[in-house]
Amino acid sequence: MPRFLIVVALTLPVSGRGHCTLDGKASHHDLGTEAVQAMSKSAAQPSWQESLFLSIPSNSSARASLEYITSKPHVAGTVGDLHMAEYVRDSFRREGITAELDPQKVLLTYPIRSALQLVDSTGRVVSAAKLAEDVLQEDNTSDTWWRNHTFNAFSPSGDVTAPVVYANFGLPEDFAALKAAGVDVRGTIALMRYGKCFRGLKAMNAQKAGALAAAIYSDPEQDGYAQGSVYPYGPWRPESSVQRGSIQFISLCAGDPTRAYAPHGKSVEELCGYSREELIPQIPVLPISYGDAAIFLDSLGGKEAPASFKGALNITYRTGPTQMQYKVRMQVDNHFQSSPVWNVVGKIPGTLPADLDQPVLLGNHRDAWVYGAADPNSGTAQLLEVAKGLGELLRRGWRPLRSIYLCSWSGEEYGLLGSTAWGEVNGDGPGALLKRALAYLNVDVGVSGAHFRAAGTPSLAQLLSGVLGQVHHPASQKPLSEHWSGRLYSLGSGSDYTVFIDRLGIPSLDMSFTPGEAHYGVYHSVYDSFNWMATEGDPNFTYHVAMSQVWGLTALRLAGSDDRGNLPLPLNLSIQAQAISSYIAEAKQTLNHTAPERVLRFEPLEQATAAFLQAADKSSEEADRLRKLGPPAFDEIVAFNNKIGLLERSFLMESGLPGRKWFRHCLQAPGLYTGYAAKTLPGITEAISAKDWQLAQAQIQACAERIWSAASALSDVGLVIAV
Amino acid sequence: MPRFLIVVALTLPVSGRGHCTLDGKASHHDLGTEAVQAMSKSAAQPSWQESLFLSIPSNSSARASLEYITSKPHVAGTVGDLHMAEYVRDSFRREGITAELDPQKVLLTYPIRSALQLVDSTGRVVSAAKLAEDVLQEDNTSDTWWRNHTFNAFSPSGDVTAPVVYANFGLPEDFAALKAAGVDVRGTIALMRYGKCFRGLKAMNAQKAGALAAAIYSDPEQDGYAQGSVYPYGPWRPESSVQRGSIQFISLCAGDPTRAYAPHGKSVEELCGYSREELIPQIPVLPISYGDAAIFLDSLGGKEAPASFKGALNITYRTGPTQMQYKVRMQVDNHFQSSPVWNVVGKIPGTLPADLDQPVLLGNHRDAWVYGAADPNSGTAQLLEVAKGLGELLRRGWRPLRSIYLCSWSGEEYGLLGSTAWGEVNGDGPGALLKRALAYLNVDVGVSGAHFRAAGTPSLAQLLSGVLGQVHHPASQKPLSEHWSGRLYSLGSGSDYTVFIDRLGIPSLDMSFTPGEAHYGVYHSVYDSFNWMATEGDPNFTYHVAMSQVWGLTALRLAGSDDRGNLPLPLNLSIQAQAISSYIAEAKQTLNHTAPERVLRFEPLEQATAAFLQAADKSSEEADRLRKLGPPAFDEIVAFNNKIGLLERSFLMESGLPGRKWFRHCLQAPGLYTGYAAKTLPGITEAISAKDWQLAQAQIQACAERIWSAASALSDVGLVIAV
Repeated sequence: MPRFLIVVALTLPVSGRGHCTLDGKASHHDLGTEAVQAMSKSAAQPSWQESLFLSIPSNSSARASLEYITSKPHVAGTVGDLHMAEYVRDSFRREGITAELDPQKVLLTYPIRSALQLVDSTGRVVSAAKLAEDVLQEDNTSDTWWRNHTFNAFSPSGDVTAPVVYANFGLPEDFAALKAAGVDVRGTIALMRYGKCFRGLKAMNAQKAGALAAAIYSDPEQDGYAQGSVYPYGPWRPESSVQRGSIQFISLCAGDPTRAYAPHGKSVEELCGYSREELIPQIPVLPISYGDAAIFLDSLGGKEAPASFKGALNITYRTGPTQMQYKVRMQVDNHFQSSPVWNVVGKIPGTLPADLDQPVLLGNHRDAWVYGAADPNSGTAQLLEVAKGLGELLRRGWRPLRSIYLCSWSGEEYGLLGSTAWGEVNGDGPGALLKRALAYLNVDVGVSGAHFRAAGTPSLAQLLSGVLGQVHHPASQKPLSEHWSGRLYSLGSGSDYTVFIDRLGIPSLDMSFTPGEAHYGVYHSVYDSFNWMATEGDPNFTYHVAMSQVWGLTALRLAGSDDRGNLPLPLNLSIQAQAISSYIAEAKQTLNHTAPERVLRFEPLEQATAAFLQAADKSSEEADRLRKLGPPAFDEIVAFNNKIGLLERSFLMESGLPGRKWFRHCLQAPGLYTGYAAKTLPGITEAISAKDWQLAQAQIQACAERIWSAASALSDVGLVIAV
Repeated sequence: MPRFLIVVALTLPVSGRGHCTLDGKASHHDLGTEAVQAMSKSAAQPSWQESLFLSIPSNSSARASLEYITSKPHVAGTVGDLHMAEYVRDSFRREGITAELDPQKVLLTYPIRSALQLVDSTGRVVSAAKLAEDVLQEDNTSDTWWRNHTFNAFSPSGDVTAPVVYANFGLPEDFAALKAAGVDVRGTIALMRYGKCFRGLKAMNAQKAGALAAAIYSDPEQDGYAQGSVYPYGPWRPESSVQRGSIQFISLCAGDPTRAYAPHGKSVEELCGYSREELIPQIPVLPISYGDAAIFLDSLGGKEAPASFKGALNITYRTGPTQMQYKVRMQVDNHFQSSPVWNVVGKIPGTLPADLDQPVLLGNHRDAWVYGAADPNSGTAQLLEVAKGLGELLRRGWRPLRSIYLCSWSGEEYGLLGSTAWGEVNGDGPGALLKRALAYLNVDVGVSGAHFRAAGTPSLAQLLSGVLGQVHHPASQKPLSEHWSGRLYSLGSGSDYTVFIDRLGIPSLDMSFTPGEAHYGVYHSVYDSFNWMATEGDPNFTYHVAMSQVWGLTALRLAGSDDRGNLPLPLNLSIQAQAISSYIAEAKQTLNHTAPERVLRFEPLEQATAAFLQAADKSSEEADRLRKLGPPAFDEIVAFNNKIGLLERSFLMESGLPGRKWFRHCLQAPGLYTGYAAKTLPGITEAISAKDWQLAQAQIQACAERIWSAASALSDVGLVIAV
């Protein structure tokens, strides 16, 4: 994997699918290298069940699974999707795991036709975009009709002829810069490059700025030859390759914008506070390659663009609009339909009584833009390896204390449709499955590089650190913990953990092996294929094995795998409390940055956090005491685990975040203007950014109340509850 | 319990329900005190599950269960039996154990009326037996109509007027002694005392000797004031008390003599080689008290009986017949009916795959002669304590590797009807539940004294020894292993293990706390009541607790309770092999005793046993090796446990024992002429006793073949079988 290691040296601090925030500051929370080292050293040695589990995932088996799953296109809702759902279900069943398809009716979009042409004043086509990815001799699966399906899901159909303007990354400040430069976006087609924020927000920003249509391309600076050799000569994006993807406004509300599955009879307006029309763009949008984009960028008139707008194409980047003699015609014909996508849910029942169960969920989506060898099916192959490991344990008579659910989602690429539907359906109502869920462990792109990256709820950091101490990095053969930065990033959005953490308050983790901070080169293209993975991504499939080990071991330790009986849950709430302190410091910096003269009263938040920290430290001592007493102290441990396991729910605000009620977690959310990346204390910091001081102060109060509620829930943990 | 400890000093070497054999030699196999000590020291310390389990049985809970179960008469097949079956079923279910009633249609007998009178030559009644147990002020449950129900199950009705002769214990040698003394039993009523052999065999011997009827009484020497103070002043049998009981010919075939439940469509002739008429007496039989017996003994004429015939009544024991001027009229009116008895079967499913399961069975009968506080419901209360302990583990998420069955039998008192029916129905046929059963652990009379006694398959001796090291004797608070003789007696019959060991070859154990070698004083009487137990038997219910602990811990260690995963089964076959060597030595002694001039060729048996010992020692080494490898060596351990767990089946002879084909085990059976007590190498030793030398030599050969088969099954254990 040296190719990737070189790339790290070139790492951009922020990038499309990285952890960028609007202000460019990394929103991670460093546990401190020493703390991490101490944790991994003190981590319990693996039990025989853990050792056996770790011995099962194999590179040949992962390779075989991946080859099968990527043997045909399986876009959400297509027959390929159903075929692979059945394959995953049957694979679970083969391991002795009960598994069923979970079809969910949602809104989907499929492309019929599209065109993007440079036309002269008479309407004659001067030049036309290919809008198709080239067939590569070196990768025979590229010869598929789906290479022509380069589209953005949820783009409405339309036929627009207008000049183009170049709006850089499509961020609010890019449009502000254009306005300042006297470039009027109204009535134009906004051409933007991928990166820095979720593509749906680019479309939203262009629409707000008055554009009639939008095109989004992959500039080789972020996503092509400037990163390294392009596929098939290296892992990076070649000239004709297009990044497909959904353009729904995911930071307003995740999931199906129509709620066609009507969870508990609720409409999208009731759940999200928005109508379908407010959650998806009203202007047509097309994704294009940098090969195609060059045509339109080269035809731009206007001033030379500011330095921050410049990419790596061998042209002069101008703001536009298109030179007077030309216009651009963009035709998009997309078909919308409400039809099922197929989740697969496998279950290993826990042995604790149902009313004491605290289910552990593992999830990965299965639907792909075309083949999805990295995104998401490297994770799918890993999930199947985890299932094999668990199956091996099951065959030997092992059972988890707590139920384990293995979830293979569909519709993720359209906007987390499958997981959100399942989460909403099972999150509410009497005896809802997710009411007592302990954790959700997500792997989306399991492998696209050699760097282990994790985002998650801080209370899971110590557990993860211990697990990484038991798994070797495939290159160095040293424990992964020695390679890990110790940074557990905050959870943003862009994958299936969203409903679990942001809506339901279930502690979550999202893990991947990435090529650094940039996303990998064939993301959402026809080249994200088995051949890419087998030649560029993970030729030995050893990173597949390593992630399976990390994922499964984390699940085993949460579910109670070591057969030492019911012990205090491995959640560390002191780390959670420390993380909140750092969020407050960041919010203060944001205030200082935005309006240094302003005074906001942070004391309620600080007092609540101090109380929570104190209660968390006391609960850590309580956990130590109960761990020493061991399983005989069952009733005390049950009471303790009930509290600890449900604590994250304290951070949910009933009324949700301002302007996006579906998101209920007061400590983090996807940034309203980033989509992927996380905002911590989002209600507060986004009110500060919007300079709504009254709202900011009210959000401080609301969040402080949630933290107080967590503190008081925690300080009861010493009490014995009779069960 | 000092009362019982005093009794020990008076212990008789042989007694009614003791381990007597025809030649009076104890048929136990002493493991050697040193070996036992070493075993209990090396026994694994209890896991937390074991410790938790041991902490659950409580004297107050056992007392409460026993008080409920003994709150009404519950003779097999009566409404009281059904009521208590439902209580046990519901108690299992309350612990999270699946449980169902298992009704089995069998032949039952209930008394209508009876009379036993001394009449003069005119037919006038001179004196009449009470045939009823007195109401005791001190035990208010004695005031029940069932105190008049003093009868022998399966006695036919009849009305006989004849002189009485006194036939001592009713053994063949007693009848021989009468004959030698010129006393003709033909045409008489044979009066015999309880003791030395099963009562059905007394009836059989009397019938064979030509008696027209029989009466069996409890002589105070074995069973009354000669043992100590009588109830309610002490634990021993008072004057009016009668020992009820079945008189079927249990050593010919156990279970329902009609096979009304027709296991797999088979008749009693097919299964047992005998008809109903051959399995139960054809003469009427009555059990009587020593108070009643004195009337008839005192009226005997004839010579003074030999010294060995003399009991403890204050009379001159004569052989009879009754003085010329008198006769005795015996009227018995019993009702026979085919109707259900209700077993209860609880199941805790094991976590090993079904095809690898090796179920562990715990059994106790529930039906009683009247209240049965000691026999059998002290064991029932213990079974419910075991269920509570298992329930507590289940609630904490523990599951056994191997399935555990908790069986509450009915119809035992009539001749092991319920257990035999269930064993026959589930022992054969494709996928039969018992095909892979690992062990059957029986407790009948759980507590009637302070001495721990165990009979069982030698391969279980080491396991038991380790378990006894973990449980305290209630009086001394020292480990029970220090109180245990180390003697694991051979299994005879008289309780529900019979079908499991003798018919199906499932390693079995039978355990009790007894008052020494004699059975307890209120056996099968109306006084075997809660009051007796609470004042005489186990006033603190601490022996109830101790037996629950022993029973459950043995089951946990067999089922795989320590959650260390699948390990080699705790069966020691070297001890089994040594036991066989000692059986051979005994058989040679029997030969020497019976016909010192005779030569039988024991070499085939000795060679087979040597080979088995060698294979057994090798398998012990193999077990050690696999124990070190631990659960990761799953496939090897599975293969090993398959062999070890099924090994006892090797000792079954397809054609059964000579003259009693239902009994198939070549190593032990109930003595043909003792019923309760065991014969080892029964086919051989009984042929020797019968001086059938050809049969004896053939049986040596047949048994040698079975042992060879065990040896060769064992020597494969080193091979890895892929599963």
